[in-house]
Amino acid sequence: MQLTADGKLKHFLTVEGLPPLLLEEILDRAEQFVSLPGKKQVQAPLLRGKTVMNLFFENSTRTRTTFELAAKRLSADLINLDIRNSATAKGESLLDTIRNLEAMNCDMFVVRHQSSSAPHFIAKYCAPHIGVINAGDGRHAHPTQAMLDMLTIRQHKGEFTPLKVAIVGDIKHSRVARSQIHALTTLCAGEIRLIAPKTLMPDRIEEMGVSTFTNIEKGIKGVDVVIMLRLQHERMNTALLPSVREFYARYGLTEERLNLAKPDAIVMHPGPVNRGVEIDSRVADGPQSVILQQVTNGVAVRMAVMSMVLGSRAESGGV
Amino acid sequence: MQLTADGKLKHFLTVEGLPPLLLEEILDRAEQFVSLPGKKQVQAPLLRGKTVMNLFFENSTRTRTTFELAAKRLSADLINLDIRNSATAKGESLLDTIRNLEAMNCDMFVVRHQSSSAPHFIAKYCAPHIGVINAGDGRHAHPTQAMLDMLTIRQHKGEFTPLKVAIVGDIKHSRVARSQIHALTTLCAGEIRLIAPKTLMPDRIEEMGVSTFTNIEKGIKGVDVVIMLRLQHERMNTALLPSVREFYARYGLTEERLNLAKPDAIVMHPGPVNRGVEIDSRVADGPQSVILQQVTNGVAVRMAVMSMVLGSRAESGGV
Amino acid sequence: MQLTADGKLKHFLTVEGLPPLLLEEILDRAEQFVSLPGKKQVQAPLLRGKTVMNLFFENSTRTRTTFELAAKRLSADLINLDIRNSATAKGESLLDTIRNLEAMNCDMFVVRHQSSSAPHFIAKYCAPHIGVINAGDGRHAHPTQAMLDMLTIRQHKGEFTPLKVAIVGDIKHSRVARSQIHALTTLCAGEIRLIAPKTLMPDRIEEMGVSTFTNIEKGIKGVDVVIMLRLQHERMNTALLPSVREFYARYGLTEERLNLAKPDAIVMHPGPVNRGVEIDSRVADGPQSVILQQVTNGVAVRMAVMSMVLGSRAESGGV
Repeated sequence: MQLTADGKLKHFLTVEGLPPLLLEEILDRAEQFVSLPGKKQVQAPLLRGKTVMNLFFENSTRTRTTFELAAKRLSADLINLDIRNSATAKGESLLDTIRNLEAMNCDMFVVRHQSSSAPHFIAKYCAPHIGVINAGDGRHAHPTQAMLDMLTIRQHKGEFTPLKVAIVGDIKHSRVARSQIHALTTLCAGEIRLIAPKTLMPDRIEEMGVSTFTNIEKGIKGVDVVIMLRLQHERMNTALLPSVREFYARYGLTEERLNLAKPDAIVMHPGPVNRGVEIDSRVADGPQSVILQQVTNGVAVRMAVMSMVLGSRAESGGV
Repeated sequence: MQLTADGKLKHFLTVEGLPPLLLEEILDRAEQFVSLPGKKQVQAPLLRGKTVMNLFFENSTRTRTTFELAAKRLSADLINLDIRNSATAKGESLLDTIRNLEAMNCDMFVVRHQSSSAPHFIAKYCAPHIGVINAGDGRHAHPTQAMLDMLTIRQHKGEFTPLKVAIVGDIKHSRVARSQIHALTTLCAGEIRLIAPKTLMPDRIEEMGVSTFTNIEKGIKGVDVVIMLRLQHERMNTALLPSVREFYARYGLTEERLNLAKPDAIVMHPGPVNRGVEIDSRVADGPQSVILQQVTNGVAVRMAVMSMVLGSRAESGGV
Repeated sequence: MQLTADGKLKHFLTVEGLPPLLLEEILDRAEQFVSLPGKKQVQAPLLRGKTVMNLFFENSTRTRTTFELAAKRLSADLINLDIRNSATAKGESLLDTIRNLEAMNCDMFVVRHQSSSAPHFIAKYCAPHIGVINAGDGRHAHPTQAMLDMLTIRQHKGEFTPLKVAIVGDIKHSRVARSQIHALTTLCAGEIRLIAPKTLMPDRIEEMGVSTFTNIEKGIKGVDVVIMLRLQHERMNTALLPSVREFYARYGLTEERLNLAKPDAIVMHPGPVNRGVEIDSRVADGPQSVILQQVTNGVAVRMAVMSMVLGSRAESGGV
């Protein structure tokens, strides 16, 4: 569903099932779009005359802003739909909303939705010339986040094959973790370790080819990459869960624990960071942290994916 | 008030009183701006260097978005004013708000207001170089909606003279119906039939040269065009009115009822559609429905009107 | 902190301490950017490829809109951050928000904040290539407002040296007044008179080289410029203060009182105007009022400051 007949990226809904070469292509293209802070911005008018609509049914200023920046740097016209005040909010069905927006002749929907199936639903039913990008759906996937993480890892480590990667925290409620596991697996990362208390570890996750740890000291030992997740307070049934204080005591990334990883290990976090909850400030701001580089890469990866998705149509004469 | 001395469109506040040739000119120009979904977008930089301000005192994501798209495709700078958080909301008079916005050197106001007189008031008191477009005012008028409807009818039927057009539903509270009647009358439509329960029919509406029906089966018989209106729950004094179920039973557009119209009759609706309230889903999505084409035409008509209104000033040397 | 080593404008946080020549430079440059309503807009693509972010932690549709217009007329990409729904609102620290935004490679923050120290804090800790403009911080400063006022005065009066300027109203809670006093002092205005009831006059304000009056008739006598301030109801501890009616009776600018000033005195107000509270409508709309000209100058001054702040980096090779 995500690929054209000749294997181009038609939509970007999930990393799952995409071929390794396509992921590499996303990374290669994104690399060209990286604008380092303080350097001249990379502008590429690949989407001139195209209309991109941000459909954020769930708030996310940060992700929405990076997509907006990516669209503008590609010269697209960007419309931020005010979904909360729209007909959808007044009871119009999602399909009717989509039909109306595509009738306005738009070229791309960037969709954030609390429901896991929404971006797939939209991609399935929208007009064939429209590309859909998943900007995070429920607990399911956040593929552009995963790809910006992969770009950051590749910039520091080169090859994925020898790498040991630890993902730490609230795996169960994290669409980010799910997409990272798929991306790391596809890119043949050497070992993926999930570190979480049992209550925050998904059932039968080992079937995905990962190893699991409830002890962070054991899990983090000798890894090349430590990916901390944000504690999603609002998504947890708190009765069964450790308190924030307990969580930090057992899983918070301190300098001491980071010292168990390889000396050149990098520390990642999708943001926004809960300092003192999942990570110590000295680590978040420390020399091994690449958290802000992830943000920079986020704009580049979104430019790459947006241009590939619309490019797949241009080449087939569809646009 | 809407026309310059030499008969150009100075503001677009209501269809009422505009000459037929001017309406035809809007339709002709809009036809050139139609961007079919999936086709290359028509872009015309006629408003480059101009500033258009969306002043939506009443929410309408759909209409606001089509005006935003129209402005961008004309290369205007568009500002969406956050009226709910503005000084107007804090008690500044409408006139003071307008004076301030025109002092920022803007060229056009697109106004949506719950009060019927607001766009006229603004057009009357704003600086002469500023064009005002009514994007819906109270129960009074929604002229761009009427013109996109006319464009859609003309695309399917060619001439207006032989046409029988039925407008069905909540006529009384509908600014859309009012503008449609004026447009159809001006364009010499053969017959205009209004179909509604007595409680939703305006008093003495026959004076406008229309015929009225309380029975949809009788009214719809042999028509070329069926225009369904949205049931405006929020505007009705519900005590006097049929329930939604009753309304659908007596006035909902079903396939059976549509079969009473001409076989090639088209079905229109300004959106958002209340499925199962004023129209059956099989009709709304059926082969005779042109509802989404109306949305496409909406962007084109708005581009036409915006460029004509500013063009009327450029030609007279005012801009 | 606001100046580069070679005396260019690095940030624009406050008028206080800036050299007179720099203020003159702002006024000279702004003069070139003035777009009179109804005249062709001045567009200067000095910020093409630059990203400006509006960070309004406090609502201000008017100021935000003029910065948005200024950015667009300079061809910058402008992002309005939805701060109220952002991670900052969810508890992320201001510093983390700033770090994330700069990682997206932006070039300028326009900051409005209820706290007096916020823009300085941001300027101190943000990356060196980013320029910060204070769009109003707490009771502290509103430097672009003061400079648009200076531009308006200069357009009418030419030289500042011989001028007597009265500032009337709620001086105590006014960041506008504070910035005006600094600007007038720096530009060597002949005499600055503050007129307010004791409860709205800051302590020891005479140290700034101004004279104070509790009687408006005495204070306004023979002045060249009368600057009225907006009564900030929401910022006052009302128990100690005169009622709105009392205030108007004692300090409202009526025609009678204005007649005590020089015959060619101009009347200014930062807006939005409270008619009948601090100023009579006949004065606000009268021939001596330059209130709307101030709004027009606001866009020009913001264009000047934005282009100077980013220009100071380009010249030093930093951008």
